[in-house]
Amino acid sequence: MKSANVKELLSMTPKLQEVTVNGWVRTFRSNRFIALNDGSTINNIQCVVDFENLKDDILDQINTGAALRIKGTLVESKGKGQSVEILVNDIFVHGIADPETYPIQPKKHSLEFLREKAHLRIRTSTFSAIMRVRSALAFAVHQYFRQNDFFYFHAPIVTGSDAEGAGEMFRVTTLDDKNPPLNDEGEVDYKKDFFGKETNLTVSGQLEAETYAMALGKVYTFGPTFRAENSNTSRHLAEFWMIEPEMAFYDLDANMDLAEDFIKYVINYILEHCMEDLQFLEQRLLDEEKSKPQAERSEMALIEKLKFVCENNFKRVTYTEAIDILRNSKPNKKKKFKYTIDEWGADLQSEHERFLVEKHFKCPVILFDYPAKIKAFYMRLNEDGKTVRAMDILFPGIGEIVGGSQREERLDILKEKMAALGIDEAELWWYLDLRKFGTAVHSGFGLGFERLVQFATGMGNIRDVIPFPRTPQNAEF
Amino acid sequence: MKSANVKELLSMTPKLQEVTVNGWVRTFRSNRFIALNDGSTINNIQCVVDFENLKDDILDQINTGAALRIKGTLVESKGKGQSVEILVNDIFVHGIADPETYPIQPKKHSLEFLREKAHLRIRTSTFSAIMRVRSALAFAVHQYFRQNDFFYFHAPIVTGSDAEGAGEMFRVTTLDDKNPPLNDEGEVDYKKDFFGKETNLTVSGQLEAETYAMALGKVYTFGPTFRAENSNTSRHLAEFWMIEPEMAFYDLDANMDLAEDFIKYVINYILEHCMEDLQFLEQRLLDEEKSKPQAERSEMALIEKLKFVCENNFKRVTYTEAIDILRNSKPNKKKKFKYTIDEWGADLQSEHERFLVEKHFKCPVILFDYPAKIKAFYMRLNEDGKTVRAMDILFPGIGEIVGGSQREERLDILKEKMAALGIDEAELWWYLDLRKFGTAVHSGFGLGFERLVQFATGMGNIRDVIPFPRTPQNAEF
Repeated sequence: MKSANVKELLSMTPKLQEVTVNGWVRTFRSNRFIALNDGSTINNIQCVVDFENLKDDILDQINTGAALRIKGTLVESKGKGQSVEILVNDIFVHGIADPETYPIQPKKHSLEFLREKAHLRIRTSTFSAIMRVRSALAFAVHQYFRQNDFFYFHAPIVTGSDAEGAGEMFRVTTLDDKNPPLNDEGEVDYKKDFFGKETNLTVSGQLEAETYAMALGKVYTFGPTFRAENSNTSRHLAEFWMIEPEMAFYDLDANMDLAEDFIKYVINYILEHCMEDLQFLEQRLLDEEKSKPQAERSEMALIEKLKFVCENNFKRVTYTEAIDILRNSKPNKKKKFKYTIDEWGADLQSEHERFLVEKHFKCPVILFDYPAKIKAFYMRLNEDGKTVRAMDILFPGIGEIVGGSQREERLDILKEKMAALGIDEAELWWYLDLRKFGTAVHSGFGLGFERLVQFATGMGNIRDVIPFPRTPQNAEF
Repeated sequence: MKSANVKELLSMTPKLQEVTVNGWVRTFRSNRFIALNDGSTINNIQCVVDFENLKDDILDQINTGAALRIKGTLVESKGKGQSVEILVNDIFVHGIADPETYPIQPKKHSLEFLREKAHLRIRTSTFSAIMRVRSALAFAVHQYFRQNDFFYFHAPIVTGSDAEGAGEMFRVTTLDDKNPPLNDEGEVDYKKDFFGKETNLTVSGQLEAETYAMALGKVYTFGPTFRAENSNTSRHLAEFWMIEPEMAFYDLDANMDLAEDFIKYVINYILEHCMEDLQFLEQRLLDEEKSKPQAERSEMALIEKLKFVCENNFKRVTYTEAIDILRNSKPNKKKKFKYTIDEWGADLQSEHERFLVEKHFKCPVILFDYPAKIKAFYMRLNEDGKTVRAMDILFPGIGEIVGGSQREERLDILKEKMAALGIDEAELWWYLDLRKFGTAVHSGFGLGFERLVQFATGMGNIRDVIPFPRTPQNAEF
């Protein structure tokens, strides 16, 4: 008899059919009721055991975490909270879980405790819900772009170019670790390294994605990126997944339209496909916030917040307008900001972004047309000569979730920008080629996938939304 | 007026509607016919220019590779090969491409030449077709697993465990390259490195995927993996994308069923969605093979071969049966194999795999139940004590495309295997935990995505099916 998964069983009409299901024991109570879960859904199926028919040695093995194969009859449930249950005829124990040593017992564990057990935390309702939502979001990303005629582009992970300057990088090498070969100048001779040059882990696939956009029209990356920054915060990972669409013939307005439409699509997708997991996560967040003072609690419950994002236009505001708002804001005048906003040109800190999003506009905000000086070299200079066609999307509770721009498509201006910043043209000869041959208006953005998962699941620490987080001093598993 | 892409335009019914399209000039002939391509399809749209209405200085700028915005009237085409064309009213030149310096001229370029220009080769019909097929295959992967209740799992890329032994690894570090800190033993002090330990780029996400399968039931990875092997061949990359499904409660038979069903699904997907690109690639392969002797040409044309895979059962053969076939084969008896097959236990070389697939069975073959000694430590030992529940899928022209196994779920036997191979239990404490707590039969496989793209596109060199290949002495772009 073929086995069914728990999700399928829970949607069946009970007609006394014989069923087989495999899964892990979540709880076993009164020597009679096994709550079995197989990861297919947040819900367990209740398996009712007739004590008389169970051998004693099997009874001892039915503990939280044990893997079982259960055969039985699917019947209407008399209990609360489920429509069907299994009257058990036969139990096979795949593997036990000794209650003396198994760490994931049916009680409340702290997120910190579970982070140390990242290989087992996925067996909890919280983490299985997070990771199912994460998986659904990832699929929605691919589906959105496919439906909109984008091509998926795999950017290289190991890169020989270090010109983007998005952050500190990890070196990739096979040279002897203690005594690397040296060249005539007494420096490490990377010509003898695997790739014949110094190589690093990519911080962004954007520049390479531009090469593909300028031929395929619309492309996107979705892959790992890396930052060797010593940031031990709840918002930073050394290894994270990024989504970077890049579109030929898109100006900044089209870019903002796309980003907003994209985010709404993927959030809508999980509202349609992950409601049970989201309801669980919403309740988890409510419970967590009960211990906080009222002022620090979320204004909206999780699902309400997700719907709000889907149903409302993102507010589009120029950097210059934002500076005016901030300069005249109460916290600025009362010196409540750590960094007071005095004049145009200041870089915005997350306290300012949060004020704009959470206090002033109370909705997602797209800031655009930033000062050229605080943005990357490849962003298109406006006619005013001092701002660039950059945009950041700011989300409540998360801060910056998207950073993008129209790209500088004019060869002469791009070269000037690079020269001013000391970026070697020889390093980016291929990037300049795009401006020499068939250049055109084009745009793109980057979205940190884990930030999106945090927003979608209400998890406060980014280490809880990726299976095995990599952070300073931590690469376990 | 909103612009349409070329694919949309070519599917429209011409009704003298005004249209706008952006794209790049593929060819311009008779000062009258522009073949414009925007990457949305392999086909160009013909734009007919009335010479009298064109300013001379614009005419000079219309060369292969130039980026244009064209406005005009969509009419039925009088020419061959297209149903519609555009009578041009207006041309805007986004960017020129000087024919003296632009490398991608409308003539035959060798694949070797184009590899040096990996940022521009995507502007050719061949590479745009390959990368559209690659993108469609990637989407089909995600769609297949989603439809079959798998969850997408992002395996870590930077890993502190080096126990799998699948191949040589790249070190990831931020230590000083020339004078790394040393510990009391005089060795490099990795406690001072970014992650507080020695870290490498992953060779496989399997072991981590097992942790998720043992909670979510069915998961898959699809991400980059790395091998620091000095293999300068047409079959090896230092960085490649791998798909690794892992399923709780699946035995080897279920694993083989899944792998076969999966491959057929994704091949069928491109037959349904990429036929024009496949037809182009089929013709390219036919042209390429014209210069080869008859014996070296493919027996089937590309599309016929893809359909054959979808429509025929893969032949399942034990290693032991395969050894018998090989031992008694003509090339073995006539010493035509480089490595003669004398006895049971020999590792199969690609010459043997190709003989089985291309000469003996003439269809995809799944070999299973290999000698334990030539397979990895985590594969499940059979009752005979000498073979393991491993399986490899061999494809014509490609060789091994899938390698998988049922995993050893028994703690004691797994420990014995690790001890025999000198694998430190402390390194894999978390992997062993899976066997301590709720262990169960489980299985999985790995499929090299680029091998699949090679098979699907008929490309002989793996460097031509990934945007920016990484190989020994090469990490350009």
